[in-house]
Amino acid sequence: MSQEKIKLIVAGARGRMGSETVKMISRTPDFELVGVVDHKYEGEKIGDLLNLSSMDARVYTDIEHCFSDVKPDVLIDFTHPEIGKKHLQTAIDYGIKTVIGTSGFTSEEVERFKKQMDEKQLGGIIAPNFAIGAVLLMKFSSMAAKYFPDVEIIEMHHDQKKDAPSGTAVKTAELIQKNREQKAQGHPEEKELLPGARGAEFDGLRIHSVRLPGLIAHQEVLLGGDGELLTLRHDSMNRQSFMTGVAYSVRTVMSLNTLVYGLENILD
Amino acid sequence: MSQEKIKLIVAGARGRMGSETVKMISRTPDFELVGVVDHKYEGEKIGDLLNLSSMDARVYTDIEHCFSDVKPDVLIDFTHPEIGKKHLQTAIDYGIKTVIGTSGFTSEEVERFKKQMDEKQLGGIIAPNFAIGAVLLMKFSSMAAKYFPDVEIIEMHHDQKKDAPSGTAVKTAELIQKNREQKAQGHPEEKELLPGARGAEFDGLRIHSVRLPGLIAHQEVLLGGDGELLTLRHDSMNRQSFMTGVAYSVRTVMSLNTLVYGLENILD
Amino acid sequence: MSQEKIKLIVAGARGRMGSETVKMISRTPDFELVGVVDHKYEGEKIGDLLNLSSMDARVYTDIEHCFSDVKPDVLIDFTHPEIGKKHLQTAIDYGIKTVIGTSGFTSEEVERFKKQMDEKQLGGIIAPNFAIGAVLLMKFSSMAAKYFPDVEIIEMHHDQKKDAPSGTAVKTAELIQKNREQKAQGHPEEKELLPGARGAEFDGLRIHSVRLPGLIAHQEVLLGGDGELLTLRHDSMNRQSFMTGVAYSVRTVMSLNTLVYGLENILD
Amino acid sequence: MSQEKIKLIVAGARGRMGSETVKMISRTPDFELVGVVDHKYEGEKIGDLLNLSSMDARVYTDIEHCFSDVKPDVLIDFTHPEIGKKHLQTAIDYGIKTVIGTSGFTSEEVERFKKQMDEKQLGGIIAPNFAIGAVLLMKFSSMAAKYFPDVEIIEMHHDQKKDAPSGTAVKTAELIQKNREQKAQGHPEEKELLPGARGAEFDGLRIHSVRLPGLIAHQEVLLGGDGELLTLRHDSMNRQSFMTGVAYSVRTVMSLNTLVYGLENILD
Repeated sequence: MSQEKIKLIVAGARGRMGSETVKMISRTPDFELVGVVDHKYEGEKIGDLLNLSSMDARVYTDIEHCFSDVKPDVLIDFTHPEIGKKHLQTAIDYGIKTVIGTSGFTSEEVERFKKQMDEKQLGGIIAPNFAIGAVLLMKFSSMAAKYFPDVEIIEMHHDQKKDAPSGTAVKTAELIQKNREQKAQGHPEEKELLPGARGAEFDGLRIHSVRLPGLIAHQEVLLGGDGELLTLRHDSMNRQSFMTGVAYSVRTVMSLNTLVYGLENILD
Repeated sequence: MSQEKIKLIVAGARGRMGSETVKMISRTPDFELVGVVDHKYEGEKIGDLLNLSSMDARVYTDIEHCFSDVKPDVLIDFTHPEIGKKHLQTAIDYGIKTVIGTSGFTSEEVERFKKQMDEKQLGGIIAPNFAIGAVLLMKFSSMAAKYFPDVEIIEMHHDQKKDAPSGTAVKTAELIQKNREQKAQGHPEEKELLPGARGAEFDGLRIHSVRLPGLIAHQEVLLGGDGELLTLRHDSMNRQSFMTGVAYSVRTVMSLNTLVYGLENILD
Repeated sequence: MSQEKIKLIVAGARGRMGSETVKMISRTPDFELVGVVDHKYEGEKIGDLLNLSSMDARVYTDIEHCFSDVKPDVLIDFTHPEIGKKHLQTAIDYGIKTVIGTSGFTSEEVERFKKQMDEKQLGGIIAPNFAIGAVLLMKFSSMAAKYFPDVEIIEMHHDQKKDAPSGTAVKTAELIQKNREQKAQGHPEEKELLPGARGAEFDGLRIHSVRLPGLIAHQEVLLGGDGELLTLRHDSMNRQSFMTGVAYSVRTVMSLNTLVYGLENILD
Repeated sequence: MSQEKIKLIVAGARGRMGSETVKMISRTPDFELVGVVDHKYEGEKIGDLLNLSSMDARVYTDIEHCFSDVKPDVLIDFTHPEIGKKHLQTAIDYGIKTVIGTSGFTSEEVERFKKQMDEKQLGGIIAPNFAIGAVLLMKFSSMAAKYFPDVEIIEMHHDQKKDAPSGTAVKTAELIQKNREQKAQGHPEEKELLPGARGAEFDGLRIHSVRLPGLIAHQEVLLGGDGELLTLRHDSMNRQSFMTGVAYSVRTVMSLNTLVYGLENILD
């Protein structure tokens, strides 16, 4: 990889996503945390605040001071809608690349920021969801459905989840729908001896929702053809599952010269 | 294993189950096929009839002649109800042990044959189903449900199957029901955004039926507890899947001195 | 289930296993936490100490005071070797049933405690490991290997694990070994084009160790027969996975009148 | 789909792949078998020769006669190297599109045929392997390895297979290698307590080969990232598994105006 480390700033470092990001940076050899932005704890070490012994980066309560002091390559922002927008604007003004996980951007706002960044040839990504594995699962399922129009989705979650099927399962089915020949699956004379056995129907394909204690968040897409089966599965074990997407976004914005919305649009 | 081979006769050797049995014997070192019983082809080699080069056992059209001529240890019968009963009676008369896969025995008939065999201390088994893996799956699921009362069954079959759920899935659920604390699974406020998503309800547990080309016959039982999941799965690929049960039955009747009905009753 | 709740005391309630136990009790309708034993925080609410709003049970620093005050049915102990032994002795003196997860008991000590409890007809269990799913997986694998002597184990762990194969995989193989006909699996002329492809050899069966980030602790046992496959899998997601075993132990000691060592000895 | 059926000729219809192709055509609504080419059985119905009641297409021993008589859209050829080349040349001369599964074409021959077909704007495909699911598995694995460089392959086959790992597993690893950052996986201080536990090493990733009776041909690619796992699996149950690829090729050549070599080159 690159000889020089990528210098990173994290805003929202004490939050759930932010603190995972700090940990991810600490175990990634070519990443270096050079500062964090917070509304308090000015000057304290983030390592002390998060109980991570070896993280010496200091807290800045003023993002402009931080930018001019440590000259980062990339700002990673996991704050709140209003703050995130201000941070992004400041980063653009300072010519700092950005990875924004903060929600609440309208299409108009994205468009307005994009225009500024295009002018400056500045790279950035805004993503409501960094679960790269889930995005790949949807993409591959949709690609495969062109050749295997018989598809069933089994999504499995802990039994505290109230809605069935999951939003991801429905989104997966929608993406598959775009690529597959429409068809009603199963035997035309198929009969449910117990109602619901064949699952939920979505444009002819079937979705099954399993709910059990011990499960976390899992999705399996089965595509069947004569004499063969293709199974694509994603298991999300915990919040760390977003970190591969954050790290990939950091590397991608280093060579990007525009603003991209949505993780799927920077994956090949 | 035993030094001496077990000498076997197969009745119905040209049928689907019978011919699989002949092949299984040919690849089992301690089994020896010493004759087959058929209503025609007297004296021909079964290997020639089934295109199996190395099987020299001859066809007998008269089962008594066969018994007195080759003195088998065990008769394996895959014929038809009426013929199977005659064969079993003759085997008892000649003191030959039996493995009967032929259907159509009433409880009274089983009882009557059992009485004769008990008197002679003669071993035999009648089984409508030799799928030992499927029987074990049901048994283990039921045992585990005592500790993990949250259970979901996913059964998967080719898309030519009309009924859902499968008979095996329902039978599995019934066996689980005997051993588990009754409970309605999932979140009490669970909502199906698409009807059927949560599958079929059976006494509070859920059964999901997947139908796709490429699938054969598969069943998965998932048992969830806090922070852990136990998954039991059986895949049946083809008719050969009955042969482990037939072979185990042959070995079992060698040391049995009564008649047993049902494979599950000779498994530990 | 029982109308009356089972009254429980937890010693070591602020430790890793103890705090999981307190949470488990809070979500189990027929369990009631009536006190906790600790060496400090006398009189404080355990709910306040663990940030669990609804747990009103108070801390006792003197176990005898606790026993005489709240009259529990069962003491659950996750403390340290020396303290655990003292607690067990006190519980016996007071006629309180026990579930002990504390390690460090010698066989002689177990025997000595058992004698006392037999005299008093008092139920108790000491278990170094409460992972009921893992215990069942081993048990079922061993049972099935009698019928399916062809077995491969795939164990999967996070890539921070240094040893391969896992201790559980080896223990599973040892239990299988007791029940299966010894055999060298695979084709006699099998060749490894890349060394190690066929995994580790243990008495003729094969063990494969997968190490990847994202994995936690998983084990799969595959048993193959002609035309069929039986797969038994256990996924352990987190420390909560011990709670099913703790809860089952509590219910079991309620009707036990001796001391049992090892979870496997109270499973059917 | 299209109103008019696609008119098909099969050469080599009595062989293993050819007869599967005839069956596939019989169950595909928009395909019509209008003739078969064979070196004998002139004028007989292919349905009679293959025991397929409803297939009325006749056998032609002269391919030119067949072409001029039934005017097919596409020739599907599963014959032998020499015959396949003659058939392809004749099809080009008659302006018939082609799907060739016959092996033995050299690069020069492919190039020479391609030139002729480009001139005539004629569509054709030559594929040594029509297993579309296996091709997709390789493709997706390679795509995902860019984001998840930690990869392990588990390939599973029946225990009559002599070589480990399988050719497909090695080819998959080679394709992954092109797309992933090179790395040695697992803990740097990893230790094999039983040699071979960690499988075969291929450029830092690991391949595990499972061999059991009951298995057919299966491959699983596991890609791990922090807190998540992506699993891609292909199960090939029997020779029918090539038919999705053959059917897709037929549809593709209908709108192709050149010769393509290799199934992967007509998949998106």
